[in-house]
Amino acid sequence: MKLIEGGICAAKGFTASGIHCGIRKNKTKKDLSLICSEVRANAAAVYTTNLVKGAPLLVTKKHISDGHAQAIVCNSGNANTCNANGVEIAEKMSDLTAAALGISPDDVVVASTGVIGQPLDIEPIAAGLPVLAGTLSDEGGDDAAEGIMTTDTVMKKVAVEFTVGGKTCRIGGIAKGSGMIHPNMATMLVFITTDTAISSGMLQKALSTDIADTFNMVSVDGDTSTNDMVVVLANGLAGNSEITEDGEDFAAFMKALNTVTVHLCRMIAGDGEGASKLLECSVTGAKDIATAKTIAKSVICSSLLKAAMFGADANWGRVLCAIGYSGADVDVGKIDVSFRSPKGSIAVCRSGAGIDFSEETAKTILLEKEIEILVGLNDGSAGATAWGCDLTYEYVRINGDYRT
Amino acid sequence: MKLIEGGICAAKGFTASGIHCGIRKNKTKKDLSLICSEVRANAAAVYTTNLVKGAPLLVTKKHISDGHAQAIVCNSGNANTCNANGVEIAEKMSDLTAAALGISPDDVVVASTGVIGQPLDIEPIAAGLPVLAGTLSDEGGDDAAEGIMTTDTVMKKVAVEFTVGGKTCRIGGIAKGSGMIHPNMATMLVFITTDTAISSGMLQKALSTDIADTFNMVSVDGDTSTNDMVVVLANGLAGNSEITEDGEDFAAFMKALNTVTVHLCRMIAGDGEGASKLLECSVTGAKDIATAKTIAKSVICSSLLKAAMFGADANWGRVLCAIGYSGADVDVGKIDVSFRSPKGSIAVCRSGAGIDFSEETAKTILLEKEIEILVGLNDGSAGATAWGCDLTYEYVRINGDYRT
Repeated sequence: MKLIEGGICAAKGFTASGIHCGIRKNKTKKDLSLICSEVRANAAAVYTTNLVKGAPLLVTKKHISDGHAQAIVCNSGNANTCNANGVEIAEKMSDLTAAALGISPDDVVVASTGVIGQPLDIEPIAAGLPVLAGTLSDEGGDDAAEGIMTTDTVMKKVAVEFTVGGKTCRIGGIAKGSGMIHPNMATMLVFITTDTAISSGMLQKALSTDIADTFNMVSVDGDTSTNDMVVVLANGLAGNSEITEDGEDFAAFMKALNTVTVHLCRMIAGDGEGASKLLECSVTGAKDIATAKTIAKSVICSSLLKAAMFGADANWGRVLCAIGYSGADVDVGKIDVSFRSPKGSIAVCRSGAGIDFSEETAKTILLEKEIEILVGLNDGSAGATAWGCDLTYEYVRINGDYRT
Repeated sequence: MKLIEGGICAAKGFTASGIHCGIRKNKTKKDLSLICSEVRANAAAVYTTNLVKGAPLLVTKKHISDGHAQAIVCNSGNANTCNANGVEIAEKMSDLTAAALGISPDDVVVASTGVIGQPLDIEPIAAGLPVLAGTLSDEGGDDAAEGIMTTDTVMKKVAVEFTVGGKTCRIGGIAKGSGMIHPNMATMLVFITTDTAISSGMLQKALSTDIADTFNMVSVDGDTSTNDMVVVLANGLAGNSEITEDGEDFAAFMKALNTVTVHLCRMIAGDGEGASKLLECSVTGAKDIATAKTIAKSVICSSLLKAAMFGADANWGRVLCAIGYSGADVDVGKIDVSFRSPKGSIAVCRSGAGIDFSEETAKTILLEKEIEILVGLNDGSAGATAWGCDLTYEYVRINGDYRT
């Protein structure tokens, strides 16, 4: 398996496009994206667990219930959530997309991201869809990736190539996500395409299994969005014999999918609203995976630790504090903590107590852009990783004045 | 019952003092406080649920186990937590206090607050205690309140006067708390004194009942401290016949205690690290109290809402979002939301959907220092209130460079 150039159009038979249609006031920002498969694809998805669910999720869930989809339409600038006519508008988006592509509305995935509680005007979308459909191309992946961005500062895409039963397969994905990131069952908007032949059931199994260790382990600000959604389309054009059960082929697919999702997780966390650093907390030596996950996520979510990382301050007491209130059952007296970055690593706590270390060396390590927080529980052999970012002035600025 | 001037020395027979002994580098900041009762008092306490517990808590728990205490010693600048010799140092603080006052070490409550994981030097404390003991006075309450402050910007004290069985009783309290505030079973450091005669058992019952609705409903940053502790001393000098069971007297005491604790909660939340506003979320119409509490706390803890309040942005979608991921079982379609401050109130969401409102009026209301977020669930008659603060640049600045 290898990383390759490209994103959502890397797999055979997928085209995409993205334009500014007028939902966002800033005309330099794209706000409507379309992704299309040459043939009807198997589809799987996971959604936010927030009780408040965006209208597009309700419509997508219905459309995907038969295990198939062919196109994804997504707007940014408005979440179409908590609006009285939300479902009606999402259905219209779906109908218009189907008409423009000559497919069934039941094969359209619809998604929206942006501000909650402001009615979404269908007019600019109606006007934009024929343009989007007319400009679909296998080079349109970046335009589509741009069209789903909100406060994101970098476009998020990735693609891998691997082999299933002697056939070359590809998986590509794009994501948006920067604030309101603390997924539970799904995250933000992530669209993944593959030409691997795999049944809807196995595709859903792969996705549901994978997100427990990937998107559900990312937190930017502890706020679980109302519109989180991860969708995978598999059109089978790679020509491998369809994956319909566990085994070597499924394992190869899972591994490739995981490479794509971890890559997107790191991009989402590193581009967290206002973030200046990517934080990765790896817990090892746990008695079970649940304990490792609980602790990794608690550390990544601590506002105090996030602010300390922004200040490149090796304040490991906050790591222990976050472990202590995580709810996990651990022996505090066995915990080791160290920090690592491209500049080296430094142990700061052993057996639950501080040890002498060079503040200067720690500063040098923590001034880097990607910081690992290594927690050793010395209580077993399970481990887990969580991703997050530092808490900065910029986060406050962005969110103190998001709507206006 | 009425609010009166004073704090920890308002009740009969309590004296206090506070000095700079040398734990903190800044000589203008007091760092050691002493509170003393003329006679041995009944005592009750609640502690943090963080698995990582400060050494002073372990020692205090042991000393208070017999239901009695006579003095409280507390230093700021160092939490004496996650240190190999922590318990030994806390015991020494206790012994030195007992020696200076001529009481038993078992009647000393010991507390520490400040940075975690740096050994606490006993020398400045040993030198300071005789000075503290020699300067105890009923006018020393403010000095003691200052001695326990860390990043607090205002001194936190309150006192009330009420009647039990025809006798005038008083309860006074001081608190410190600004960051790492998300108590669970207790909060930060809160010391309360009263001259009411009340048995240890009923005192503990009063405290344990009260904190569930007060300190446990405060959150500044979602981080539960390792050193949270609330201690009440009741020396009985008011002369009322001792409260030993439920009834009118106990109810009067509970009401007075609640007035003191709510006052301190609001002061702690409003002085949250970097805070520019006090936020109070009141949930009504819930089917039960647990639901109301879960929702009030989820709203108060949302980083996105906190940042929006800093920006005086009426972004009610974030309120609904926080309700949706709170885990509470609610009908989203019934929820009403409005904002209120001394400048008026404004409805922004009805039956789970946005309604037209004047952004200008909303701005005027939200620019105030104290903001109420009113959530109506229209699903029952239970309610709850939680307190917090906005998320500001200052929070990031303070915590990006706390140790150095």
